[in-house]
Amino acid sequence: MKALVYLGPGKRVLAERPKPVVELPTDAVVKIGKTTICGTDLHILKGDVPTVATGRILGHEGVGIVDQVGSAVSHFKPGDRVLISCITSCGKCESCRKGLYSHCVQGGWILGNTIDGTQAEFVRTPWADTSLYRLPETADDEPFVMLSDIFPTGYECGVLNGKVSPGDTVAIVGAGPIGLATLLTAQFYAPAEIIMVDMDDHRLETARRLGATQSVNSRDGRVAERILELSGGRGVDTAIEAVGVPQTFELCQSIVAPGGVIANIGVHGKSVELHLEKLWSQNVTLTTRLVDTVTTPLLLKTVLSGRLQPLSLVTHHFSLGELMKAYDTFAQAAENRALKVVISNGRG
Amino acid sequence: MKALVYLGPGKRVLAERPKPVVELPTDAVVKIGKTTICGTDLHILKGDVPTVATGRILGHEGVGIVDQVGSAVSHFKPGDRVLISCITSCGKCESCRKGLYSHCVQGGWILGNTIDGTQAEFVRTPWADTSLYRLPETADDEPFVMLSDIFPTGYECGVLNGKVSPGDTVAIVGAGPIGLATLLTAQFYAPAEIIMVDMDDHRLETARRLGATQSVNSRDGRVAERILELSGGRGVDTAIEAVGVPQTFELCQSIVAPGGVIANIGVHGKSVELHLEKLWSQNVTLTTRLVDTVTTPLLLKTVLSGRLQPLSLVTHHFSLGELMKAYDTFAQAAENRALKVVISNGRG
Amino acid sequence: MKALVYLGPGKRVLAERPKPVVELPTDAVVKIGKTTICGTDLHILKGDVPTVATGRILGHEGVGIVDQVGSAVSHFKPGDRVLISCITSCGKCESCRKGLYSHCVQGGWILGNTIDGTQAEFVRTPWADTSLYRLPETADDEPFVMLSDIFPTGYECGVLNGKVSPGDTVAIVGAGPIGLATLLTAQFYAPAEIIMVDMDDHRLETARRLGATQSVNSRDGRVAERILELSGGRGVDTAIEAVGVPQTFELCQSIVAPGGVIANIGVHGKSVELHLEKLWSQNVTLTTRLVDTVTTPLLLKTVLSGRLQPLSLVTHHFSLGELMKAYDTFAQAAENRALKVVISNGRG
Amino acid sequence: MKALVYLGPGKRVLAERPKPVVELPTDAVVKIGKTTICGTDLHILKGDVPTVATGRILGHEGVGIVDQVGSAVSHFKPGDRVLISCITSCGKCESCRKGLYSHCVQGGWILGNTIDGTQAEFVRTPWADTSLYRLPETADDEPFVMLSDIFPTGYECGVLNGKVSPGDTVAIVGAGPIGLATLLTAQFYAPAEIIMVDMDDHRLETARRLGATQSVNSRDGRVAERILELSGGRGVDTAIEAVGVPQTFELCQSIVAPGGVIANIGVHGKSVELHLEKLWSQNVTLTTRLVDTVTTPLLLKTVLSGRLQPLSLVTHHFSLGELMKAYDTFAQAAENRALKVVISNGRG
Repeated sequence: MKALVYLGPGKRVLAERPKPVVELPTDAVVKIGKTTICGTDLHILKGDVPTVATGRILGHEGVGIVDQVGSAVSHFKPGDRVLISCITSCGKCESCRKGLYSHCVQGGWILGNTIDGTQAEFVRTPWADTSLYRLPETADDEPFVMLSDIFPTGYECGVLNGKVSPGDTVAIVGAGPIGLATLLTAQFYAPAEIIMVDMDDHRLETARRLGATQSVNSRDGRVAERILELSGGRGVDTAIEAVGVPQTFELCQSIVAPGGVIANIGVHGKSVELHLEKLWSQNVTLTTRLVDTVTTPLLLKTVLSGRLQPLSLVTHHFSLGELMKAYDTFAQAAENRALKVVISNGRG
Repeated sequence: MKALVYLGPGKRVLAERPKPVVELPTDAVVKIGKTTICGTDLHILKGDVPTVATGRILGHEGVGIVDQVGSAVSHFKPGDRVLISCITSCGKCESCRKGLYSHCVQGGWILGNTIDGTQAEFVRTPWADTSLYRLPETADDEPFVMLSDIFPTGYECGVLNGKVSPGDTVAIVGAGPIGLATLLTAQFYAPAEIIMVDMDDHRLETARRLGATQSVNSRDGRVAERILELSGGRGVDTAIEAVGVPQTFELCQSIVAPGGVIANIGVHGKSVELHLEKLWSQNVTLTTRLVDTVTTPLLLKTVLSGRLQPLSLVTHHFSLGELMKAYDTFAQAAENRALKVVISNGRG
Repeated sequence: MKALVYLGPGKRVLAERPKPVVELPTDAVVKIGKTTICGTDLHILKGDVPTVATGRILGHEGVGIVDQVGSAVSHFKPGDRVLISCITSCGKCESCRKGLYSHCVQGGWILGNTIDGTQAEFVRTPWADTSLYRLPETADDEPFVMLSDIFPTGYECGVLNGKVSPGDTVAIVGAGPIGLATLLTAQFYAPAEIIMVDMDDHRLETARRLGATQSVNSRDGRVAERILELSGGRGVDTAIEAVGVPQTFELCQSIVAPGGVIANIGVHGKSVELHLEKLWSQNVTLTTRLVDTVTTPLLLKTVLSGRLQPLSLVTHHFSLGELMKAYDTFAQAAENRALKVVISNGRG
Repeated sequence: MKALVYLGPGKRVLAERPKPVVELPTDAVVKIGKTTICGTDLHILKGDVPTVATGRILGHEGVGIVDQVGSAVSHFKPGDRVLISCITSCGKCESCRKGLYSHCVQGGWILGNTIDGTQAEFVRTPWADTSLYRLPETADDEPFVMLSDIFPTGYECGVLNGKVSPGDTVAIVGAGPIGLATLLTAQFYAPAEIIMVDMDDHRLETARRLGATQSVNSRDGRVAERILELSGGRGVDTAIEAVGVPQTFELCQSIVAPGGVIANIGVHGKSVELHLEKLWSQNVTLTTRLVDTVTTPLLLKTVLSGRLQPLSLVTHHFSLGELMKAYDTFAQAAENRALKVVISNGRG
């Protein structure tokens, strides 16, 4: 089968690889219908993720059709249409029983990381009963590709951890796909104001179209000041960091109101300065989280009922044979005005 | 001044009464701008509320302009535009400090009950600093009349107590003003389905227009069965009782899913049968609540930001001089397709 | 093997039955070390539980040693010492993923109910990975028999649902084993007062010894009045019903303070009268729950650290061969001053 | 009257000052019965707290008897025995109505900071109705001095923010008075293990006597390693920082388990390094808080019921005339084995 293979820092190839098979009784093999590329895949390609070995098939997002199941899989059978979660959960360990699937002792983020991933014609999914989600027969499968990772990530790490509530003022720093998924799911809770921050005017325009009430381009150097103005001098109830660099985390610290929350989503490569000399008395909460995907069933319901429209984040389409080109497009997101790219298997 | 006075069961009159004055240092006197009539006022007129004495000026809702303040009032001054909460809160007692304003030892629901109310040209409001809310100079005051009682009631007793959450299936039994205020504020939380139940097709039509995804007329005798069908046989996550009679409470018991919530809003005149022989093992939560109006500041923000549109519940307008006619209209709500009627002082 | 078998209403026998075997890959067979008898077993014997067929081996509590495991069991192997939960949880269904194990679509309370139970030399336990809990090698196993059912029941249905908190006043109605388990776990949260209610002075004496700050014998007909006195006229923050008859539920309604909680644990055979005409405005929460046993890992830690002493509820010991006599003793609990009886396999 | 006056960095004097009077209608003047010295007072004396002007009477803790009240004070009258909260709360502003008394727009921590404090014969207390708490006539007042600041601080900032729960493993870094108050109130929630960290063996010994299950002297340089061992390699559920320097905050980051909480109590003078490069994926929560004293009523109940024994932290007694000596003793806490010192007015 065709698969996108990591060959070490800076190197990827669309190669022919053997079709995976069921290895353990709890495995399934899924024929990929659609997959996508994540910012994390670009990090891997930069060599920033040491757990990814050379030769690994990338990708941790996708929808498809169950092709084979192991003998212990009881909830799925070949032919079932499924969503593949980016987080593998055994459902049995102490972490899983507490809803902390991201820290499953045998799972967590392993697809496209420590085992082969979804940017291929087929993928082996361990612990299938608790890591796949059934899709309705009638639904178009494309919106659900967005539910493998970015929507649960924005919702769990940003919106839920950030305790976004009706009437609140929320700032989301970073208007990439994750920031925009956060923006869309933040609206589940009717905040009064959502202020979007980015350096790319096109993305801010998209954010306003998708429900941001205010947007601030951070290039002007007065972003903290402007957000304080927009929040009546008080600061924001929730500041969501969706970039992953020290400057944006610094910004969050300077705009959060007493009693507020800083919810970190960004993948940080280095430590940051925490201003406890100021914040110790500000009654703030700061959260970090690798997505658990515990809200996938809930998000499925919001998509099926029309409350959530994930396709608003899809900008480009490719066939599986065009995966290299899809990467090129996604890697130059600004020039290409790319958010999420969808890669289809067998219909290109 | 003109005031609507209760003269015992079945009797009301628009009479001339002395203008109220500040009696205690924590009082304010407010010149009424707009007021409205509540279902509870009709209960009083039926003689169902024994705490209301003959001679009482009715009304516990309204907006207006501060006319006078007592010496201990520090947050308001004459000329301030204010919302009058239906619940008076001293801000000092154990209940108030816990957010249980409805059980304030010196306050609670007293306006138009144990002291004179808002259906008049002026009203004395005790504990003004903690029972009035400032309105912005620029805003039209009419939407805020709806925030004295029905919106906090629907939101606190129905939506918050009912733990309405994204993706949930919610049933609201009763599509009167309170039920519809519940419907509008339930949408703060993006439930997947909101099923509205009433016996009046016109109100159900209004409900669908205001965001109900399904509606069921309870006259057909199969309402529980139909709601179970609509919820895939599982029952609803939240059943909200907004009527106040045994039959509707019975309905809520028969449609709630295991793990779900029954949130009672209705004012009940008699006891009901609770089916513990069935419910003991169903992991359900049942709540009751007299509105605390702790969420008034939050609701103000949702109105000012445009997330909540309270005027969608206003069907009729009257001048203060037409208060008797306003009561006639509201008392025959079905014929008149009346939801909330707004009574204006000095602009009729 | 020897087993206690239900032969229809009023009839039980200690009979010879075939040793169970692994039927499904997710099963284990456990050699019982110790088991006990539950109040529910007496209900079954009265014929009150129609799901229990004639010929059923009773019992849903116990500790033992894993004898055999199915091919899909990955967390346990023969020889492991385990606690058997009274609730079987598949770990995969929507209910289990939400922590509502009691409503597991394939599990829930099935042991000694719809499948053979633990009052035998061996028991087959379905979904072993998610329904058994590992015991440390070194620990005495007797305290853990109490963690199969009564401690999670008292803790989850009574203490957690009842939101017992530091400084609170709590009433527990019923000082049988479940009520006393509630009393012990309520002390996890440092309530100021725990008032115990029962008709049996001996049990009330035990309750005081185990931490109740007050006790009231309900025979005197003034129990509500006395509890109101003990709570300064205010009523209790939490009233826990641990009996299951209308009178005790009525009592809970009359003693709960505004803003308080009634947490039902009792198994009710008939409906009760709910005084909504009074409670509608009292901001009370009422909960029901079949134990989920989601807190079993937590309870294990409290026992291992010495915070919880389950053996304080054990009054009698029998061998498996004496099971009929153990039932006689437990059925006449008052005369025998019996709380929990422990039945040991192979050391009688 | 006699009062302890701050005269600039390093300088304090016991001086004669005029007795305070009621200045605003919401004020009370309280005759001090007992007061104490806080670590914060030492910070002030070092010149670290710029809001404290030369000439200020220090002290923000104490119990006493109401001497005079302003005309708007309705809950207290001369002769009432009261606890003075370290936080002044107007009860009316948005922060107070949300329970964020520490950020009261007119109050917060002002006593012994921006207005004269309690280390004197009398003190003026603004917003008396919502900043004083009634003490029972019969109770010894000494335990309650500890409820002005250290117990609500340990409980709110450490235990509640840290979500200490039954069965948890908790580390408290710093065994000074605040750390020990945290230790005592952590036991309200029955954690399985409480590991105390300090550099002073005497304080660790005290901690073990007061309920710590483990203690680690941090001088040995292997403290993180040892705590990981003590928690089975997993780390702690809650790490509470009660020192206020970068090293101890660093320690907390290295011992918190995935899904755990770091609750900061310490007053930090400089920023710290936050290891987001490691923590971003660890699902941790970090909180800061200036005490709100919202839990004072709850803590009063736990003391009156005997669940909490604040006197276990009192090591020394002085008369008001010995205030300079009391400071000397407290400033050299280690040599003097001092925890809290109680200063009595009129019985020295």
